Amino acid sequence: MRTDGRQPNELRPLTITPNVNKYAEGSVYIEVGDTKVLCTASVEERVPHFMKGQGKGWVTAEYSMLPRATHTRNQREAAKGKLGGRTMEIQRLIGRALRSVIDLQALGERTITVDCDVIQADGGTRTTSITGSFVALAIAMNKLSTQNKLTKFPITDYLASVSVGVVGDRALLDLNYEEDSKAKVDMNVVMTGAGQFVELQGTGEERPFSREELDQLLVLGSEGIEKMIAMQKEILGPIVLKIGSGQAGTQV
Amino acid sequence: MRTDGRQPNELRPLTITPNVNKYAEGSVYIEVGDTKVLCTASVEERVPHFMKGQGKGWVTAEYSMLPRATHTRNQREAAKGKLGGRTMEIQRLIGRALRSVIDLQALGERTITVDCDVIQADGGTRTTSITGSFVALAIAMNKLSTQNKLTKFPITDYLASVSVGVVGDRALLDLNYEEDSKAKVDMNVVMTGAGQFVELQGTGEERPFSREELDQLLVLGSEGIEKMIAMQKEILGPIVLKIGSGQAGTQV
Amino acid sequence: MRTDGRQPNELRPLTITPNVNKYAEGSVYIEVGDTKVLCTASVEERVPHFMKGQGKGWVTAEYSMLPRATHTRNQREAAKGKLGGRTMEIQRLIGRALRSVIDLQALGERTITVDCDVIQADGGTRTTSITGSFVALAIAMNKLSTQNKLTKFPITDYLASVSVGVVGDRALLDLNYEEDSKAKVDMNVVMTGAGQFVELQGTGEERPFSREELDQLLVLGSEGIEKMIAMQKEILGPIVLKIGSGQAGTQV
Amino acid sequence: MRTDGRQPNELRPLTITPNVNKYAEGSVYIEVGDTKVLCTASVEERVPHFMKGQGKGWVTAEYSMLPRATHTRNQREAAKGKLGGRTMEIQRLIGRALRSVIDLQALGERTITVDCDVIQADGGTRTTSITGSFVALAIAMNKLSTQNKLTKFPITDYLASVSVGVVGDRALLDLNYEEDSKAKVDMNVVMTGAGQFVELQGTGEERPFSREELDQLLVLGSEGIEKMIAMQKEILGPIVLKIGSGQAGTQV
Amino acid sequence: MRTDGRQPNELRPLTITPNVNKYAEGSVYIEVGDTKVLCTASVEERVPHFMKGQGKGWVTAEYSMLPRATHTRNQREAAKGKLGGRTMEIQRLIGRALRSVIDLQALGERTITVDCDVIQADGGTRTTSITGSFVALAIAMNKLSTQNKLTKFPITDYLASVSVGVVGDRALLDLNYEEDSKAKVDMNVVMTGAGQFVELQGTGEERPFSREELDQLLVLGSEGIEKMIAMQKEILGPIVLKIGSGQAGTQV
Amino acid sequence: MRTDGRQPNELRPLTITPNVNKYAEGSVYIEVGDTKVLCTASVEERVPHFMKGQGKGWVTAEYSMLPRATHTRNQREAAKGKLGGRTMEIQRLIGRALRSVIDLQALGERTITVDCDVIQADGGTRTTSITGSFVALAIAMNKLSTQNKLTKFPITDYLASVSVGVVGDRALLDLNYEEDSKAKVDMNVVMTGAGQFVELQGTGEERPFSREELDQLLVLGSEGIEKMIAMQKEILGPIVLKIGSGQAGTQV
Repeated sequence: MRTDGRQPNELRPLTITPNVNKYAEGSVYIEVGDTKVLCTASVEERVPHFMKGQGKGWVTAEYSMLPRATHTRNQREAAKGKLGGRTMEIQRLIGRALRSVIDLQALGERTITVDCDVIQADGGTRTTSITGSFVALAIAMNKLSTQNKLTKFPITDYLASVSVGVVGDRALLDLNYEEDSKAKVDMNVVMTGAGQFVELQGTGEERPFSREELDQLLVLGSEGIEKMIAMQKEILGPIVLKIGSGQAGTQV
Repeated sequence: MRTDGRQPNELRPLTITPNVNKYAEGSVYIEVGDTKVLCTASVEERVPHFMKGQGKGWVTAEYSMLPRATHTRNQREAAKGKLGGRTMEIQRLIGRALRSVIDLQALGERTITVDCDVIQADGGTRTTSITGSFVALAIAMNKLSTQNKLTKFPITDYLASVSVGVVGDRALLDLNYEEDSKAKVDMNVVMTGAGQFVELQGTGEERPFSREELDQLLVLGSEGIEKMIAMQKEILGPIVLKIGSGQAGTQV
Repeated sequence: MRTDGRQPNELRPLTITPNVNKYAEGSVYIEVGDTKVLCTASVEERVPHFMKGQGKGWVTAEYSMLPRATHTRNQREAAKGKLGGRTMEIQRLIGRALRSVIDLQALGERTITVDCDVIQADGGTRTTSITGSFVALAIAMNKLSTQNKLTKFPITDYLASVSVGVVGDRALLDLNYEEDSKAKVDMNVVMTGAGQFVELQGTGEERPFSREELDQLLVLGSEGIEKMIAMQKEILGPIVLKIGSGQAGTQV
Repeated sequence: MRTDGRQPNELRPLTITPNVNKYAEGSVYIEVGDTKVLCTASVEERVPHFMKGQGKGWVTAEYSMLPRATHTRNQREAAKGKLGGRTMEIQRLIGRALRSVIDLQALGERTITVDCDVIQADGGTRTTSITGSFVALAIAMNKLSTQNKLTKFPITDYLASVSVGVVGDRALLDLNYEEDSKAKVDMNVVMTGAGQFVELQGTGEERPFSREELDQLLVLGSEGIEKMIAMQKEILGPIVLKIGSGQAGTQV
Repeated sequence: MRTDGRQPNELRPLTITPNVNKYAEGSVYIEVGDTKVLCTASVEERVPHFMKGQGKGWVTAEYSMLPRATHTRNQREAAKGKLGGRTMEIQRLIGRALRSVIDLQALGERTITVDCDVIQADGGTRTTSITGSFVALAIAMNKLSTQNKLTKFPITDYLASVSVGVVGDRALLDLNYEEDSKAKVDMNVVMTGAGQFVELQGTGEERPFSREELDQLLVLGSEGIEKMIAMQKEILGPIVLKIGSGQAGTQV
Repeated sequence: MRTDGRQPNELRPLTITPNVNKYAEGSVYIEVGDTKVLCTASVEERVPHFMKGQGKGWVTAEYSMLPRATHTRNQREAAKGKLGGRTMEIQRLIGRALRSVIDLQALGERTITVDCDVIQADGGTRTTSITGSFVALAIAMNKLSTQNKLTKFPITDYLASVSVGVVGDRALLDLNYEEDSKAKVDMNVVMTGAGQFVELQGTGEERPFSREELDQLLVLGSEGIEKMIAMQKEILGPIVLKIGSGQAGTQV
């Protein structure tokens, strides 16, 4: 039994509250156990310099933790005057993952910026950000489609993410902070609704890991993500009909 | 009648939810109409360089808006690599105001950092931050006092803040964003429970203002702040007995 | 009697020397007691990005202290790589105050940048900067008008500023550094020639202040500013005929 | 056949030239095809702040590309004033990988900084940096051990890295720039001499990837790394006896 | 004849006004034609990190131009967030030159920071800064010596600087801005009272220069500096007895 | 005899290896004793903002030392977030020197950026960078001319540089690090093939220097540069026919 009473292959309680921000085109508040992230998707009718004139859109992400999201207060990156390596690594990961299920041609010359602001952190903030961002992005895309601004719905599949790891000698799903800080091996898995891999980042924090351990972790991760995507579908309701349909966004 | 149906001397609905963060020593989520701010008070057992060796503590504040707290997305200051003038001005104001009701000697060699993160902005974010911060600070002080870490309760009076302004030709209390953006005169008032001024910042945005207008605005502000402090007392419950008592923090 | 022998409602000796810089369109060297500030107004025939295409001009200000303007040497902000909060707050204040007496439409698509460089500081550097900047600005506007570049003189009224404060229990006008550092209440007042308020920034540095104290301070401030504006008129000579006249700038 | 005539499971020509810098405690110049990296290991007799007083050492890495290492010139990060996200991500990866085969206790209170400067880039600069860094680190450790500064040789196993990817529909080993830029799936593999994983970073650049593809890529990567480690052993000569021996560093 | 009527070997009018700042240990306002620089020397009773524990002092310089010191307004380096290359080059030069006539041992563990702020620029700002700085430094040293803080007077010789250059085909002394901007060769010369070189920086701006031209320029420079040092002696009055005397600073 | 056995007027062994980078339009690896610098010349078909619309090109240089180019490791300027004064001073010198032998009109609207990366430093890195940069620049210009992109060959003369100095009491040519660190006088000389001066920077590091010493150093420098230019001609082979010819770049 884990310290919070879960089975090795059990997710923490997952809640996704949509439309929490009155200005953003898409927004959710996602809670995975005590990890809480606000995700907003903002649509701008222009593309970054390097994408100009290609008739395609762009999806990017920014990630930040509030200073007291953690046990002790962290100095703000705005006060330090620069983004840390961890932040950059995470926001590059989120953006890359989201783009893997977006048809940038279908999006048209627009930029979607997804902001993931961690209100409280208890392990898995980057994976939770990805799972929440996908829903915020889908809501924003639905808004564009109901405004008849799209000729094709640009989301091609579902996307969710979870962490897995080896703690002691056991492979565990969805590590909380306490488990994460003692993990010998730590892996973040990002997968699609079709059950394929989008990103796989495994690290032997304390020792290298074997092929057998890798296989175990991948099975746990796949099962967790499947459950998360089921929850996303519930929240998205009729938008589900549009995802992967390749249809112009008729109102649902 | 105002666009949202309020009387000139009417506050927007005010909600203060205490203890919203599981790590911070004090925290509240404050909503004034559609303006929503998360305030956390973090205690650290050290003082900044310039306060060392004086046997006194320090209270400081930081302020930030989430990128999509507003109608259109703002670039993060962390991404720009520096704090803007508006942010610096606001966080200096919040810190100065809080220190005016704190006995730094009684606090002891500790630093309290109050973080005000604006989740959604609809006018009055700096005044809302002050009103919320006071409650977060009081909760944190109560925590220290129940841990017998204080010999005297360091909060000497209540503190709240509200904006007032001249819109068209009428003096109004607690401007929302729409009113604020058309205001000819704009004033932020910070007052204590004893009804005295802590800060007064009035600006003739579009035209100078007369002594008569100033007098009208000060009356409106005083009345609004009185109501806000009544709400603070309700939320604080038994902590009210400690504020201004000069007593060592016995448990309440 | 004050430490320098002044009455409570007495200004320090005020000198304004115009045209001290051979390149700037307008310039003055202003001395208020031992506080000495060089103010230059520079005209550029373009507006900042956010003002483009509106047929209006812009007035902005920058403020800086030389490293040894004060008792001990301060590190340069250029060497630190960023402007401090105090500097930003002050330069925002100066620019806002100047814009309150400028008709930006009449200015045309031009930017006036007023630079206030404090050569020596003995209290009141921000208020002295405003009083001096107004004269430098008026000289620069006169230069434009004598070059027939304006169809209407853009300055609508006079503008000056002074500090007031409560030291011990007495309300005093125009605090020097020594008085300022022991002041319990500190207020900066910016007013027009018509005797109206442009900015009012009062702070209870050591304790809150009452309505009675506020009233006393406002009276002291108004009287001081009236005297300062009389001095500005003397320096400006025939330019006085243009200010507030709404006339095209015929040569004076 | 690949554009440079290689088999799918064939590495590019690999050359490691040791001791190319007269000052560094360890150094190599590594060439993998046209990718050329200078790796130096610098020993300092102190540890970073967060490691102080633990009796342990630290190994960290920095990575940089010369401006004209690539087809078109890149602006220097020193001129931009900040490190990019890609650089931070890579140097965090190299440092983490090296630490996985170092016994920090055995290293003692020292910091080893490995600098990887890419002289010319043709794909695989991060994996080449890891493979080269390991040799530079081993040379530096040998130097410490021959100076009798160690009581136990701190390197516990070999470490090398290679990229693999899916180009068209084929899984390929050790992608050059041209292949990398058209890869649908891209994976960096870091492994030990014992054949275990240290890092696994797989990305579906253009499309998600299946479990079957993952398995194929892992086999290719393992084989490539085995050959690289054989080359490392050749270069290291008698130092091979020390690695993983747990022996005090007697002179070899 | 030159555009301002001077002979080729004629300096511009030179004025040095001592003690212009009430806080600085040493200060002068130096005017060379229309080039005007405020030099202050600040004494601090500590040395920079790299000089600690050597029983020696340090002399350093900072240089800055006010934004409207020149024909068109320059952006402040504090606003840009970094010092430009020209500024760094100049302040390194001033500091190096001053140190050449200072006995750092005799100075004791103190730092002298000389600030050169260019109030108005008309060519030769760096050479004027050196000539003025020397006097400010000597006044500060005299202050220390009259306070009996020195056992030996630390200034070993006089120091002044002037620019020379080839304009058209003529070698000229002390170029103003107009001459400087058309100069084909430009040279800054720094010399001691003993007529020896401290710094020589010659640049063929538009074309290389011959040995004959170099010789001509060196003669012009030596003569100009001799006159400047005569003026420094006049200003310094009785302090002249201390310079180069090696005597403990008895009061003069 | 010098510590490395050279005569006072003897250069260290000089090797220039051309075309060491497969992407750059021009490149050399230059070794002067143990000082080793990689110089690449990159051609871009655009000019910086301040040169636009003049029908002329621009040549600029950047300089950097690898962190372990020296006895002890230096922190990267990219990690510090800004360029140091020494780096700026050196890259300004290299760019200015190269431009003195380039006809910017003949270059056309192009920018040549020469990057000098110091792989190993043993004194004279700035002079070695100039000598190497000239050859890289000539190779790049030859490439443009063989592509028929030029109507006139833009290089007007040869350019090389060497350091000279007074060590003990002797004037020495081409100081290595050990000599440089004890030099009383240090001078960098940049000259053309015609034997004229382009830059002369002499500093009395430990004491001022006399006219006699200056004359001695200039003779040593001229002789050294003559030998370096002979070596440049050898490396450049048939390109020699183009330099200073004013001819359109026919293929050689």
